[in-house]
Amino acid sequence: MDIQLYDLPDLADYGQDFLLTWNQPKKYIEVTIQVAEMFRELHRRGDSLRHFNTGLAVSIFRDQSTRTRYSFTAAANALGLGVMDLDEEKSQIAHGETVRETANMLSFLTKVIGIRDDMYLGMGNRYMQEVSGALDLGFEEGTLPFRPGLVNLQCDIDHPTQSMSDLAWLKQYFGSLDNLRGKKVAMTWAYSPSYGKPLSVPQGIIGLLTRFGMDVSLAHPEGYDLLPEVVEIARTNAVEAGSFFEVTHSMEAAFEDADVVYPKSWAPFAVMEQRTELLQSGDKAELKKLEQEGLAINSSYTDWECNDRMMDITHNGSALYMHCLPADITGVSCEQGEVSRTVFDKFRQVTYQEASFKPYIIAAMMFLMTVENPAAELIKMNPNI
Amino acid sequence: MDIQLYDLPDLADYGQDFLLTWNQPKKYIEVTIQVAEMFRELHRRGDSLRHFNTGLAVSIFRDQSTRTRYSFTAAANALGLGVMDLDEEKSQIAHGETVRETANMLSFLTKVIGIRDDMYLGMGNRYMQEVSGALDLGFEEGTLPFRPGLVNLQCDIDHPTQSMSDLAWLKQYFGSLDNLRGKKVAMTWAYSPSYGKPLSVPQGIIGLLTRFGMDVSLAHPEGYDLLPEVVEIARTNAVEAGSFFEVTHSMEAAFEDADVVYPKSWAPFAVMEQRTELLQSGDKAELKKLEQEGLAINSSYTDWECNDRMMDITHNGSALYMHCLPADITGVSCEQGEVSRTVFDKFRQVTYQEASFKPYIIAAMMFLMTVENPAAELIKMNPNI
Amino acid sequence: MDIQLYDLPDLADYGQDFLLTWNQPKKYIEVTIQVAEMFRELHRRGDSLRHFNTGLAVSIFRDQSTRTRYSFTAAANALGLGVMDLDEEKSQIAHGETVRETANMLSFLTKVIGIRDDMYLGMGNRYMQEVSGALDLGFEEGTLPFRPGLVNLQCDIDHPTQSMSDLAWLKQYFGSLDNLRGKKVAMTWAYSPSYGKPLSVPQGIIGLLTRFGMDVSLAHPEGYDLLPEVVEIARTNAVEAGSFFEVTHSMEAAFEDADVVYPKSWAPFAVMEQRTELLQSGDKAELKKLEQEGLAINSSYTDWECNDRMMDITHNGSALYMHCLPADITGVSCEQGEVSRTVFDKFRQVTYQEASFKPYIIAAMMFLMTVENPAAELIKMNPNI
Repeated sequence: MDIQLYDLPDLADYGQDFLLTWNQPKKYIEVTIQVAEMFRELHRRGDSLRHFNTGLAVSIFRDQSTRTRYSFTAAANALGLGVMDLDEEKSQIAHGETVRETANMLSFLTKVIGIRDDMYLGMGNRYMQEVSGALDLGFEEGTLPFRPGLVNLQCDIDHPTQSMSDLAWLKQYFGSLDNLRGKKVAMTWAYSPSYGKPLSVPQGIIGLLTRFGMDVSLAHPEGYDLLPEVVEIARTNAVEAGSFFEVTHSMEAAFEDADVVYPKSWAPFAVMEQRTELLQSGDKAELKKLEQEGLAINSSYTDWECNDRMMDITHNGSALYMHCLPADITGVSCEQGEVSRTVFDKFRQVTYQEASFKPYIIAAMMFLMTVENPAAELIKMNPNI
Repeated sequence: MDIQLYDLPDLADYGQDFLLTWNQPKKYIEVTIQVAEMFRELHRRGDSLRHFNTGLAVSIFRDQSTRTRYSFTAAANALGLGVMDLDEEKSQIAHGETVRETANMLSFLTKVIGIRDDMYLGMGNRYMQEVSGALDLGFEEGTLPFRPGLVNLQCDIDHPTQSMSDLAWLKQYFGSLDNLRGKKVAMTWAYSPSYGKPLSVPQGIIGLLTRFGMDVSLAHPEGYDLLPEVVEIARTNAVEAGSFFEVTHSMEAAFEDADVVYPKSWAPFAVMEQRTELLQSGDKAELKKLEQEGLAINSSYTDWECNDRMMDITHNGSALYMHCLPADITGVSCEQGEVSRTVFDKFRQVTYQEASFKPYIIAAMMFLMTVENPAAELIKMNPNI
Repeated sequence: MDIQLYDLPDLADYGQDFLLTWNQPKKYIEVTIQVAEMFRELHRRGDSLRHFNTGLAVSIFRDQSTRTRYSFTAAANALGLGVMDLDEEKSQIAHGETVRETANMLSFLTKVIGIRDDMYLGMGNRYMQEVSGALDLGFEEGTLPFRPGLVNLQCDIDHPTQSMSDLAWLKQYFGSLDNLRGKKVAMTWAYSPSYGKPLSVPQGIIGLLTRFGMDVSLAHPEGYDLLPEVVEIARTNAVEAGSFFEVTHSMEAAFEDADVVYPKSWAPFAVMEQRTELLQSGDKAELKKLEQEGLAINSSYTDWECNDRMMDITHNGSALYMHCLPADITGVSCEQGEVSRTVFDKFRQVTYQEASFKPYIIAAMMFLMTVENPAAELIKMNPNI
């Protein structure tokens, strides 16, 4: 791979947090991907990505996670940062401390904070905004000598580290971002015997890929709507990019002639809304009942499976299959799932490739939000560019 | 800020652990604060505090903690140490291993051990003393190539990282340690609807500030006594420093003409004593009952609140409000708490400043207990002094 | 100590994982011990063992552990690696993800993976083999830019970091590996009022020491057999090394004239087999019943204790006592245990010495499996050899 760093813009203009891709300038998205590619290549060569001598990256996971936790840790370590992993069950955060105070208390020597809070609609991103505001204020008031950058590791609205990794992978797969124009992506719901999967992956995908001229067909059964404001963003993006965006209730319609398919389960919108309310009221019996209802609704749609028959109707029968992993594979991880074993096995290694971009995307986000003159520093790191 | 390192004494004389401030020479207290200030300033400048190439800091938390955990991790990371966080629930320590053995097993390549064990009177500090003795023996016997230093991150008797941070903050606020002489501090109990808060913060404060010539008025309702031996230490300190120390049962008496107020909840002494006994006998039903009793006793003293009316009777109505955080704020974190919203809001940023010293205080403690020639090393780190 | 690195073989030939000592060439075992000794000496001198600038060591503990966790963390830190500790309760691994996928997802920037999975016969080592295969495939397929090395931190079959540390200690105690020839080791069962202790320590010991010409007498009550295939390996090793190996049901027979005794509790073989079945079927009531049965069987053999009377019948009454720690000490950690207080107290510091090799053994394993030209790198680290 030949690394070319084109016109790195004055990144200092863009602000420090990475919360929603649609609030970042398109140029910044492109540069982040470029830096991630460069880090990936340097690491493959055996070169160090270390930039910091010391410093902390604090992660706050309000939902269990192995892979994102790994990606965050690996990214921080590669840049030279130590990681402090905050388990909210253990910490006092769960016991009524104000967000503002905690955000300051955990930032005195912190470079980056990563947060995953994706379980409840209307909560996760709001929490991140509060942390972000608290960090601004802490810096302005002089509590914090530096303003740590904040990375959204998945919220109720967006999953930018996933969608950015996916975009980096699509860029590599199709050769360039320009080549994505006019390619059709089927972002579709798929059946899974599980409950309460967040909406942030499909929302992240439709909110990002529409900006790069891809034709996005979002398909799901009735009642599985995504957040209306994100669908609206995708619609506007498509208009601005001169691309196509549609919502359909037919998996077939979406798959037809698609260049890329992304079949993935998520929870019914109404169930997710009720869940947030029940959680706030702390009604565990009703939460259990809601889970049963959610599973019952799901079970009407077991035919939403990505299998050979479905892949056959894609463009030349050879669309790229994508998934954020882990996928629910029929006959492997469950009786009936999102994808047939044949299709998954064909794309297994390809989905691993897709996933491999995430640590570098996070490292690029961390780097760009904490380094004063990233262009100069990148040139120092890679004397061959 | 102009950094001046005055006559660094031969610190090797002072022994390696930091368990109780009153067992440290006054000069050592002063130097620790000075080094913390220097570290804080270097970090604000963007300079590295790294001193170690590799090495471990092991933390043992026997009570949940977010902030002290962060401060310990940040301090270790800043000096170049990795952190191994020992969760006692997970570890075999909770299953009957002798302290001596574990202390040795966790120290083969360890530079610093930090322990928080503040839940039971008569237990926490004793445990730290045992670890300290085990480390001495391990080093003498040749099991350990180096003798790790031990930092008390809060025990039943003292909370030295808190009281030292508070002293550093007071030094900055009033301009110098000398300026503290004759200033009146009201260390008072305050109401909180919570149970079992340790006595170590007020004990740490009265045991340290009396040595620096501050006039300390300790106020609490009857039955909320601190450990008699610590009260005695404060009394002796005051005599030696030519300052004033009193115990009163009137919050008003303490606040009157005070330059500094530190209103904070703690548990009734008798309740804390019974709790230790019940815990050792493992009687959970009785522990629950004791908690109810503790809360009932507390509820007689809801008028022990720091509010505008109370602040008005301090020196010129403008005392400095201090708190170790998180505070129980009336109408914010609870219905009725330690401090009114108006008072806390006025001092919120100021309490954050106070807290910001802790990572540097811990880093200074770690540095002084592990570095052979600290004076020379500090000069190397900061060529401008 | 004078460090001599003799003819370091071309280690690249030996493959990257350290799962079972008997699958490693004898030369490789010797070199690993030599590197561990060198690291230990360098650390005692105060020299750095740092080799990596950045990089991750991922640990997966499927059973609670304090000491091995520490040794792994300390080894990784000493070489310059950060540690990501995977708690399987928290992670998604416990929820049906395939081993292959997880192994790849946690390896994008990983140098070393350490796994402890010792609870169920037929499971732990098989899991490690699966991870190993997944890493091979991930590297071949191009998912992973480098192939991380895998360290067995204890499985159902072997406990190589323990047996290798024990061998290093025996080498130091007797002066050389050659001096071990003809020395008699009593690897014996001993009573403990605990349940379900793994078989891997005694298996590791008989599988390793027999290769170095030691005469090994394995003693246990009937029904406490070790895995037949490991006993067979020990038997074959003894034939090849021209040494002696026997299985007896008499602790006295084993202790008689022994130079080294290693009395240690483990679970009855049949109980361990049933436990694996019950665990897979998830029958908790039966598991509880089995625990009671196991304890009842144990209680017939309380006289299997290492005490003065037993030590008297060893070679000159002065055998070396070994234990992997923590030991169950009669009258200290339990009413009746593996070893009398008198014997343990005499050897306490000696068992700490034994344990002190483990971090260096793990560091040596990590180093040899990740560094391209270890001989050259070792010479760089230690200019005096």
